[in-house]
Amino acid sequence: MRAVDLIRKKRDSGEHSREEIDFLISGYTRGDIPDYQMAAWLMAVWIRGLSRPEMAALTEAMLYSGEVVDLSGLPGKKVDKHSTGGVGDKTSLILAPIVAAGGLTVPMISGRGLGHTGGTLDKLEAIPGFNTSLSLADFRRVLRECGMALIGQTAEIAPADKKIYALRDATSTVENIGLICGSIMSKKLAEGIDALVLDVKTGSGAFMQKEEDAVRLAEVMVETAKRMGKKAVALLTDMDQPLGRLAGHSSEVIESLEVLKGKGPKDLRDLSLELSAWMFYLGERVKSVDEGRALALSMISSGQALEKSRQCIRLQGGDERVADDYSRLPGARNKLDVISPASGYVTATNCMEFGIALAILGGGREKKEDRIDPGVALEFHKRIGDRVEKGEPLATIHYNSGARLAEAQQKILHSYYVGESKPADRPLVRRLIGV
Amino acid sequence: MRAVDLIRKKRDSGEHSREEIDFLISGYTRGDIPDYQMAAWLMAVWIRGLSRPEMAALTEAMLYSGEVVDLSGLPGKKVDKHSTGGVGDKTSLILAPIVAAGGLTVPMISGRGLGHTGGTLDKLEAIPGFNTSLSLADFRRVLRECGMALIGQTAEIAPADKKIYALRDATSTVENIGLICGSIMSKKLAEGIDALVLDVKTGSGAFMQKEEDAVRLAEVMVETAKRMGKKAVALLTDMDQPLGRLAGHSSEVIESLEVLKGKGPKDLRDLSLELSAWMFYLGERVKSVDEGRALALSMISSGQALEKSRQCIRLQGGDERVADDYSRLPGARNKLDVISPASGYVTATNCMEFGIALAILGGGREKKEDRIDPGVALEFHKRIGDRVEKGEPLATIHYNSGARLAEAQQKILHSYYVGESKPADRPLVRRLIGV
Repeated sequence: MRAVDLIRKKRDSGEHSREEIDFLISGYTRGDIPDYQMAAWLMAVWIRGLSRPEMAALTEAMLYSGEVVDLSGLPGKKVDKHSTGGVGDKTSLILAPIVAAGGLTVPMISGRGLGHTGGTLDKLEAIPGFNTSLSLADFRRVLRECGMALIGQTAEIAPADKKIYALRDATSTVENIGLICGSIMSKKLAEGIDALVLDVKTGSGAFMQKEEDAVRLAEVMVETAKRMGKKAVALLTDMDQPLGRLAGHSSEVIESLEVLKGKGPKDLRDLSLELSAWMFYLGERVKSVDEGRALALSMISSGQALEKSRQCIRLQGGDERVADDYSRLPGARNKLDVISPASGYVTATNCMEFGIALAILGGGREKKEDRIDPGVALEFHKRIGDRVEKGEPLATIHYNSGARLAEAQQKILHSYYVGESKPADRPLVRRLIGV
Repeated sequence: MRAVDLIRKKRDSGEHSREEIDFLISGYTRGDIPDYQMAAWLMAVWIRGLSRPEMAALTEAMLYSGEVVDLSGLPGKKVDKHSTGGVGDKTSLILAPIVAAGGLTVPMISGRGLGHTGGTLDKLEAIPGFNTSLSLADFRRVLRECGMALIGQTAEIAPADKKIYALRDATSTVENIGLICGSIMSKKLAEGIDALVLDVKTGSGAFMQKEEDAVRLAEVMVETAKRMGKKAVALLTDMDQPLGRLAGHSSEVIESLEVLKGKGPKDLRDLSLELSAWMFYLGERVKSVDEGRALALSMISSGQALEKSRQCIRLQGGDERVADDYSRLPGARNKLDVISPASGYVTATNCMEFGIALAILGGGREKKEDRIDPGVALEFHKRIGDRVEKGEPLATIHYNSGARLAEAQQKILHSYYVGESKPADRPLVRRLIGV
């Protein structure tokens, strides 16, 4: 078998066998196949696509390029959630303690933010001392002690993905359903989980802006998980506007803690409960999703979820006092309102632009090497359907450096669409896939 | 400007500006853009295509990546011919001495064979001592002395092409009209010529098997040459069967010398005269193509072309005695006939397979690093339209190593199609483009 022939095959819209995909992925991971051949193949894949069997083979080849964590020694079912990412999406910080408090184990390996989206690891690192770089041994220890742990990808987990992802980023071959599925699922399946809840975002702030693309990605990921003997479901959820009222690292930790205290914005609370409910259900902790919802609510009202969050922060080296004193988190010195130039109703937002505005202000990464300012935040006062009067603030920018403030302000201003008629209410969960 | 954005643009079927193409080609030639980004871009180009202005920009960017030979100090017009390659295509060895003998200068920079096609340089190197690696200074000296010189690409000429071609070869991005045009024309325009005759092959032994593809390539190359202020014409010629009766390195030198002696097979003689006539005409040596044909014929009948060939061989270090004593060329020790299993007429050939059979026997390269056995040859006894009886030889294999003889024999046997009715006569020159 030769890489050049497999590149030609995909270029000409051919379908690879499992052996061919294994040859490419293991050869590339070992360094036998050079970057330039993999880059040409990735572009051919991006344009020509992968069939379902090819995606399955790709995911498995990437999964078995590294270690699969064995958590069979820990009691109970292991469940995780993965979100395809958006603006203000901080549900991991809420549902992990809810579900761990409810008796399941949540072994969560997360990523960092890039472009317009935030990353769970970056948000956790806003907490002074919080260490996301645990060894697999420490990961197991924290899991055993408190039922949840939140770490980053290690060198042992899916090394093929690490190498391929860097190449995709440099060759404009990121947004492809087959490649995304392989990247996400190889990492998630390496966690040693029994069940996975997928939160697939769609709308103006999502990678998959078109609902049909999001549905295809959701179907493919659920199918891949099930083929590997895991329970899985995908919730297709709205990302036409930010989730919650705050975007930015410290502020998303705060908003998450607020939800764990029974407060916080309704959309964020509802989605966190919904995802937790599905995790309880797939993890066989409850007999129905309704029962899962009730269990999740009780974990909040009893304070057990908040307590679980404190415990995890402590075990991972963080300052648990942030839960009671938000001033212990990095903050922003200045603020600036973004004022509505007209009266009417918010009819839509260009949500991705909010994420880019945040990154411009230092609250995100434009390039992988960029350092994040965790204190920077965007506070959204108006949501789609809200009434706004001319001169009223749509949002507030919390910033430290004013260097690119005007640019960010313009982006936010132009990303709110104000019209005359109130738009129809929109469901937060648009569809369930894999049920 | 960033390479990753330009890759995305082409991936999404965008059209590059001249500045963008310059950025990519000069950046890659300097080493600022890595192989993997160029590989992804090449695959996007292969699939999405290049517009005419993009092809023009690519050709010029590649041309000006290196030195353009200045031959203005030499007397008379400089003309060259380029063929897109096929099986048994040895016209360069015939027309260069004809045209140089007729008073024009032929500065010919040629390539090596790969896959099913032979290369002019490899054929010349069958002549003991013949040196195709002249410096540009020696190239000029030989040109001044005898009006023709036949060398390989130097480091100074179109270095972008050298680097890009190697990458295309390893990433299955060779067969694309825009990339082929850029590669051929950047080298040819760097020779310092005034006019160029293109022999674009089409048929079962050509890279462009479909006539419509060959026509597009011909149009694009002629247009590119004219835009750069050069006279150019393309002859679309038949490659549904080998040109001449012999394929293989020594044997093609012999067949070329036979034509220069007024003998040789009719198709090879006719095409050589036709191409020479166009070179004389574009080089303004004659007033019409007919006059060019007459001049070419007289260069053969007077023996001047053969004498010019001897002179060039001598000046480039070769043993000119081969012209009179073919046994001085490397030969083959053994031969084997390929016998027709049926009576009838040859209706078609799968010509590319002949080239591959020759390569399998050592008379060509499967990989770039392969060494060629110049003595190996295929001798074709039957052409399309010929009558053949069951048991009669269709071809004879002249070989040294019998290692893959059976495989080659099968390939040749299965590449002759024998049917009941005699096919219609076919023109050797199918179309003229750019007149």
